[in-house]
Amino acid sequence: MRATAKAHTNIALIKYWGKRNEELILPTNSNLSITLDGFYTETTVHFKEELDRDVFILNEKEISGIPYDQVTNHLQLFRNYANRQGLFAEVRSLNKVPTAAGFASSASGFAALSGATAKALELELDEPTLSRFTRQGSGSACRSIYGGFVQWEMGKLDDGSDSYAIPIAPQDHWDLRVAAVVLTAKEKDVSSRVGMKRTVDTSVFYDGWLESLPRDLEEIKVGIAAKDFEKVGSIAEANCLKMHATTLGAIPPFTYWQDTTMSVMETVQQLRKDGTLAYFTIDAGPNVKVVYLPEDEEKVLAQLNATNGVEEVIVSKVGKGISYV
Amino acid sequence: MRATAKAHTNIALIKYWGKRNEELILPTNSNLSITLDGFYTETTVHFKEELDRDVFILNEKEISGIPYDQVTNHLQLFRNYANRQGLFAEVRSLNKVPTAAGFASSASGFAALSGATAKALELELDEPTLSRFTRQGSGSACRSIYGGFVQWEMGKLDDGSDSYAIPIAPQDHWDLRVAAVVLTAKEKDVSSRVGMKRTVDTSVFYDGWLESLPRDLEEIKVGIAAKDFEKVGSIAEANCLKMHATTLGAIPPFTYWQDTTMSVMETVQQLRKDGTLAYFTIDAGPNVKVVYLPEDEEKVLAQLNATNGVEEVIVSKVGKGISYV
Repeated sequence: MRATAKAHTNIALIKYWGKRNEELILPTNSNLSITLDGFYTETTVHFKEELDRDVFILNEKEISGIPYDQVTNHLQLFRNYANRQGLFAEVRSLNKVPTAAGFASSASGFAALSGATAKALELELDEPTLSRFTRQGSGSACRSIYGGFVQWEMGKLDDGSDSYAIPIAPQDHWDLRVAAVVLTAKEKDVSSRVGMKRTVDTSVFYDGWLESLPRDLEEIKVGIAAKDFEKVGSIAEANCLKMHATTLGAIPPFTYWQDTTMSVMETVQQLRKDGTLAYFTIDAGPNVKVVYLPEDEEKVLAQLNATNGVEEVIVSKVGKGISYV
Repeated sequence: MRATAKAHTNIALIKYWGKRNEELILPTNSNLSITLDGFYTETTVHFKEELDRDVFILNEKEISGIPYDQVTNHLQLFRNYANRQGLFAEVRSLNKVPTAAGFASSASGFAALSGATAKALELELDEPTLSRFTRQGSGSACRSIYGGFVQWEMGKLDDGSDSYAIPIAPQDHWDLRVAAVVLTAKEKDVSSRVGMKRTVDTSVFYDGWLESLPRDLEEIKVGIAAKDFEKVGSIAEANCLKMHATTLGAIPPFTYWQDTTMSVMETVQQLRKDGTLAYFTIDAGPNVKVVYLPEDEEKVLAQLNATNGVEEVIVSKVGKGISYV
């Protein structure tokens, strides 16, 4: 009735940017990520007969409100599956994802929560099933079940039963590095949830985005298999630019970029002009992640740290999948 | 055999961004601009029997190479029309368009050249015909024949005979102001000509761009007629963002924005949050133009001048059409 799981966050190289079903969290496109070793959540789920409600303790602090509701809703999925309604849990999470780094802690958070809950209830789910459960907590979290390079299959079925992550290449396949570039924070006008929905509903570019994705996904997998860094990096960077272009065609238009976001993009493009292969990717926020090869680490970090508006640069390697402590 | 014409530059609120015929310079969409009084070209064309070639003197300096070829090719259109082959001209231009301001001097330049040439040859062209001739020198120049608010009709015919500018509202219809924000220059990677073509040929967003334009154009004309500044400004800003989004979906992707471009965009959006209506538009380069109402001039200029990376801010009013000196 008690289990602990640890899961890492991930960064998408082919972006998840739109839901075809809001409630089940089914994406409009298959997408692909790298699991990162630098950021993780470790969660202990302890079901106790004496509890009359779930309790959620995050970083030693009891949580209420929307995050609590999300956790207890997620536990409910597992209770329903196990037919254990009325059995409540104490959830203790340690979150090693600095929110300032612009990583959604929801990815590692829901992956760890799912793994620990399933184990505490002795459900012995296979990984695709665990990934599917995880997806319903937070879409991109379903990719954090696996280490290395991971694809989230959009699936075709209305009930979402074929929408889950599959491993593309393991952690030790390729030693890439990802620098999370933390920028001086400004207020974020549009949340990722709202921005995604507004884009799907209104952007004149959304069809173009969707049409271009199958090829991006196929090509980047060819690149990953061949460890062709220029191919993988350039597809990822172009895919990120397309995702952000869709927000400029929304009604009303918006952007997650700041002037400092663009400074980092310019630094990365200048690195390439100077002969160092490095590529950026950006999620629904101003911070930038830079992908590069280990032998270029010194040069890349020096240039990133010298860029205007950069507060901190945090390096990750390719991480592993969910584990149980 | 000698005439002088003066024409002003213009700034598009609905962008011209793609050609359906490269040689005749026929656009993929109808578009709309404001003629600006701040920047102009004054050109004297003097046909002389004794010349055995055209001569082009720009700002007191004789010009050769591509700009010379463009001028002499443009004169040839008029010579052919007038059946005066073999008659050459001395062309003297004074260009009051600081190229650093990011205005293409080609708009006022080809408009003034066309007007002076037609008059020197005593052709007595009507304005639509003059605009059509001008278009073949530089697309957006065809709008500078008129003052005030001007639409360039894309036309449908293959020979371009129905592709020319028409006046929408005269100079004195509405006292808007346009601040040209000059940024610290960096090297431009992609020329507007190359960028436009690459976007038309490869961008996954080009269809979405084209589909959204007829409505933008209709709505902004409603706004101009009603002097509804919020409507006109928000349509213009959104249209500019869409144009720039198309470049992010090109293969390979590119952008005309710099970090400082984004700083100015943020300043304008902050002005609006603080209750001052101002809207930006950006052409194929990093500089930003800001449209605002006369009563807000002090506030707008103060904020623009206080923005990082801004070198200079040059104010224009709505300008008049071509005139003869």
